[in-house]
Amino acid sequence: MSRTVTVAAAQLGPIQKSEGREVAVGRMLRLLERAHQRGAEVVVFPELALTTFFPRWYTENLDDADHWYEQSLPSPATQPLFDAIRRYGLTIYLGYAEIAHEADEQGVVRKRRFNTSVIIAPNGEVILKYRKVHLPGHAEFATHRKVQHLEKRYFEVGNLGFPVVRAPVGRAGLDVNLGMLICNDRRWPEAWRVLGLQQVELVLLGYNTPAVNQDNRGFEAHHLRVLHSQLAIQSGCYQNACFGVAVAKAGKEDGFELFGHSIIVNPQGEIIAMATTWDDELIVADCNLDMCELGRTTIFNFEKHRRPEAYGRIVEQVGSSAPPVWKPSKS
Amino acid sequence: MSRTVTVAAAQLGPIQKSEGREVAVGRMLRLLERAHQRGAEVVVFPELALTTFFPRWYTENLDDADHWYEQSLPSPATQPLFDAIRRYGLTIYLGYAEIAHEADEQGVVRKRRFNTSVIIAPNGEVILKYRKVHLPGHAEFATHRKVQHLEKRYFEVGNLGFPVVRAPVGRAGLDVNLGMLICNDRRWPEAWRVLGLQQVELVLLGYNTPAVNQDNRGFEAHHLRVLHSQLAIQSGCYQNACFGVAVAKAGKEDGFELFGHSIIVNPQGEIIAMATTWDDELIVADCNLDMCELGRTTIFNFEKHRRPEAYGRIVEQVGSSAPPVWKPSKS
Repeated sequence: MSRTVTVAAAQLGPIQKSEGREVAVGRMLRLLERAHQRGAEVVVFPELALTTFFPRWYTENLDDADHWYEQSLPSPATQPLFDAIRRYGLTIYLGYAEIAHEADEQGVVRKRRFNTSVIIAPNGEVILKYRKVHLPGHAEFATHRKVQHLEKRYFEVGNLGFPVVRAPVGRAGLDVNLGMLICNDRRWPEAWRVLGLQQVELVLLGYNTPAVNQDNRGFEAHHLRVLHSQLAIQSGCYQNACFGVAVAKAGKEDGFELFGHSIIVNPQGEIIAMATTWDDELIVADCNLDMCELGRTTIFNFEKHRRPEAYGRIVEQVGSSAPPVWKPSKS
Repeated sequence: MSRTVTVAAAQLGPIQKSEGREVAVGRMLRLLERAHQRGAEVVVFPELALTTFFPRWYTENLDDADHWYEQSLPSPATQPLFDAIRRYGLTIYLGYAEIAHEADEQGVVRKRRFNTSVIIAPNGEVILKYRKVHLPGHAEFATHRKVQHLEKRYFEVGNLGFPVVRAPVGRAGLDVNLGMLICNDRRWPEAWRVLGLQQVELVLLGYNTPAVNQDNRGFEAHHLRVLHSQLAIQSGCYQNACFGVAVAKAGKEDGFELFGHSIIVNPQGEIIAMATTWDDELIVADCNLDMCELGRTTIFNFEKHRRPEAYGRIVEQVGSSAPPVWKPSKS
């Protein structure tokens, strides 16, 4: 019998700055109901799914921005989501801004902020938590930008690594190796590989990605934004022999466009489902996890083919360094 | 003024087992002449460009297989290539099977065999040598296979890392950061990243890739072979902000099909030129190296965004390991 799990990408349209969590949660409840009707067992929501993409707004003092973050899960505002997944027997991925009161690297307990995602079991327990490692953008107000991208201001770099866990999903309880990424992480092959080295079978990831690159300097056509996102996800799935569910918050939010094109990708790197609106939209696909075995035991049999002795620079240096210069010794 | 270099992918059709080097070299000379006419400054030939893809043939004692290897470059058989590149002012990438008499890891000088590529300057000097790190296939005769893929028998794992060098190319002598990969290397994001960390601008790579995956177990449609190759190259170029020139030996060789579809890819991950035959074919593109700066200084600014502290597994483990198991603690 094949190990098939039915997964749904629950893309959200825009959430305006003026809209409260109850608006987002209400729309998410309708997507959960639809996912249940379509036979889904796992439902993936976007990054920062409960609010507008607030890092586009500058705040001098972060303590004035606490209302964008969750201090606990569930909360009165998010409890209806927990009720719904229990009712439908669904496992979900939820992205949100997290405030945690916990010790930092110096052992001092303080208020910390992360761009976080969790996988929640039908019974409401958190199966796995991940905090975004690859924060894009900048920490200070950038005068040349029409819209800010202040993730490096609003969040600390994630401190949980790239964890993978084997857990039962949905009502049927099929065991699946689950991992997570958030938005910009998907562009970094290192992140995918760390998941692959833990035998991940299903990578869940949400994103909020501007449809226009303000820094393109004339070299990046706008339509390539979607190509780049899909290229990174397709190659990540292929090279690590896993399925990926990548889910957008899409549409014109606070006046700025985020692209949609949420996709579900198989271990061959093929897109097997794709959203085509910039609004709330559910796409569903059956994922036969036996497909992961092919890559893992042949062309991407890591044990047989990887050569870490040649990969040292990946961990030994952060930035790039200039190569040596060669000159001809004769004419 | 933009830093533009004109590059050519010189795809070769099949070279049969019965054909000698003079046949291959004769065809390569015609491609060099055509490249010169088209204004190319850099010409890339395939992996193992001088012979049939001999690792499909089993040999009990490797000393009986010395005729497939080069003991020196140039040799009487390859001298005409050197004469031509001097005449035309071309820089070339050449893949070949190498026999080297050199010390091994124990310091013992012995006859060693590598799957090698070199970049040769117009004056005949070797600018850079690379030895394939990711050898696919197997070392022993595999009875279940219709055709063997004995690279792990015929070659040692490359011992030169993934070097990059800045060197003048072609007659105009524009300085370019050059790196190399060979065939299966292109599927490994680690290899691309090590090149990217050395600010590579132009990745030259040749391949011999069977058009059919004998181990597909019903999960990999044949047409995906080309998709996988291109996906790996496009994402490698995008994620490392470099150009790639990927060149096939194509067609029915010794009765077995190798796919073509040689491509030139820009730092946006776009295919800017593609071969469409399974025969000798030249494709040419202008590569504006200023394009590499966009990715390198924005979304893939490694210094700003990479997080090696989260990448440890990439070098600490070779194979994958199973993740921990999670169980619900309540119903």
